Amino acid sequence: MAEKTVAVIGLGLIGGSLAKDLAWLGHRVLGHDRDPATLKDALAQRCVHAALGAGYDGIQEADVVVLAVPVGSAPQILRAAAPKLRARLVTDVGSTKRSIVAAAEAAGIGDRFVGSHPMAGDHRAGLAASRTGLFREARVYLCPTDDTTVGAMEEAGNLWRTVGAEPRVVGAEEHDTRMAWVSHLPQAASSALALSLAGSGLGADAMGPGGRDATRLAASPAVLWADILLENADLVEPALASLEVSVAGLRGAVRRRDRAALERMLEGARAWKEGLGRPAIEGAPGDA
Amino acid sequence: MAEKTVAVIGLGLIGGSLAKDLAWLGHRVLGHDRDPATLKDALAQRCVHAALGAGYDGIQEADVVVLAVPVGSAPQILRAAAPKLRARLVTDVGSTKRSIVAAAEAAGIGDRFVGSHPMAGDHRAGLAASRTGLFREARVYLCPTDDTTVGAMEEAGNLWRTVGAEPRVVGAEEHDTRMAWVSHLPQAASSALALSLAGSGLGADAMGPGGRDATRLAASPAVLWADILLENADLVEPALASLEVSVAGLRGAVRRRDRAALERMLEGARAWKEGLGRPAIEGAPGDA
Repeated sequence: MAEKTVAVIGLGLIGGSLAKDLAWLGHRVLGHDRDPATLKDALAQRCVHAALGAGYDGIQEADVVVLAVPVGSAPQILRAAAPKLRARLVTDVGSTKRSIVAAAEAAGIGDRFVGSHPMAGDHRAGLAASRTGLFREARVYLCPTDDTTVGAMEEAGNLWRTVGAEPRVVGAEEHDTRMAWVSHLPQAASSALALSLAGSGLGADAMGPGGRDATRLAASPAVLWADILLENADLVEPALASLEVSVAGLRGAVRRRDRAALERMLEGARAWKEGLGRPAIEGAPGDA
Repeated sequence: MAEKTVAVIGLGLIGGSLAKDLAWLGHRVLGHDRDPATLKDALAQRCVHAALGAGYDGIQEADVVVLAVPVGSAPQILRAAAPKLRARLVTDVGSTKRSIVAAAEAAGIGDRFVGSHPMAGDHRAGLAASRTGLFREARVYLCPTDDTTVGAMEEAGNLWRTVGAEPRVVGAEEHDTRMAWVSHLPQAASSALALSLAGSGLGADAMGPGGRDATRLAASPAVLWADILLENADLVEPALASLEVSVAGLRGAVRRRDRAALERMLEGARAWKEGLGRPAIEGAPGDA
């Protein structure tokens, strides 16, 4: 990617990591964070070269604008900044894509907008947890609007490839459906497990390595994830309903001492995890 | 631990790893496996120096006997071998402890028996997955019978400390209650999640790092875990019932778009995971 001016709004784990990668690669990074202390830290760390002013002033200079804020806040910021945007590409990093894609279309910048969702990060949050290399070999879903130009799409692909990520294009609806299962459901399952364990009176330090892994996602920021789960509620609810059925199935087999049923369920889970569950289907979401 | 003769029955991940550690430390290891090819491999790898004969013949020579077989098989092997046992310590490595402790008492070797449960291992199984150092810094629960002698208890502590593990003494009932929550429930939760994901039609390769961790335990051997869950069924069932309630609670909050309830639950899970959930209680199971 030729040297560019990139505005990053929101300097948390994802925004901060992207700013660090881009600054390190020689791009000029304009930054904004609602927390003045975070912005000051980012300037001191030189991953942000200049701060945007009030009302996102200065964003006019950006070739590329990245919204790296919680999914619930992104549409509003997009609307507020839209009149000043001259960027060839406006994108975001949110975990759901339908609402932001719709917001970009509604704000009249659908041609220059591509939704992004990098499958990177961890349960820690904030600029302090951000680091260069976070996106290396990470899959990034790119979701165009109905009006996205080929040029904006190429720009988005370049942005992510330049920090080592691997872009894949997918529709916003398909993206959100897939995420409900492979991301939001595991998050909720991990939290549900931790909630039950909390109720048992045992501490997290009583867990072995397996239990620690199974509850790792439960350490994620609650407000951020409430946002994501609610944003994608219509698709997350059936996934959670399916999990209820699976847990109830295991409990029933245990209660009935039904070894055959229990082995069949555990083996079905194992086969899926080991990739033996079903043949790869060309064009299926798993291959997108 | 002074040089000893240790018989290891069952040369899978746990038995094989223990044999490797003990052989490497200069102890004489007698071995048995129901699969002749595994026994042959163990002899070839020199982690077993001699094979036990038919009917566990040769076990008379052992100072220490370790049963490293599935929890469902251990009591039967204990009964079969009991008449020949001259060891100062007989122990096992199973994930549940009530039935084996009862079996040792019934077989008349309660004085020399200490149940062991090393919190080590991974989802892979078999001698091929076994390795030295598996028990380093791992917690090992030691469960005495009603008749265990101080000498047998010391021997058990020495055995595990010599391979780097950290023994803690706990009653079999308390052990099994605790395991129902911190080990068996996470295992079942991970399998339930994988089962639902399998039903979604998405492949395991579509997961990000978080989802991969949350489903890691689902790759564990199905037969082995069916055994453990059924062995501990009376304690596992209420834990699974609690998980059903937690999942249903999250689903209800998502369905009602109840942000406050959702944040409260996610935050409760997070606080527990981060060890902020409740003050440490002296003598509580988490501190045993």
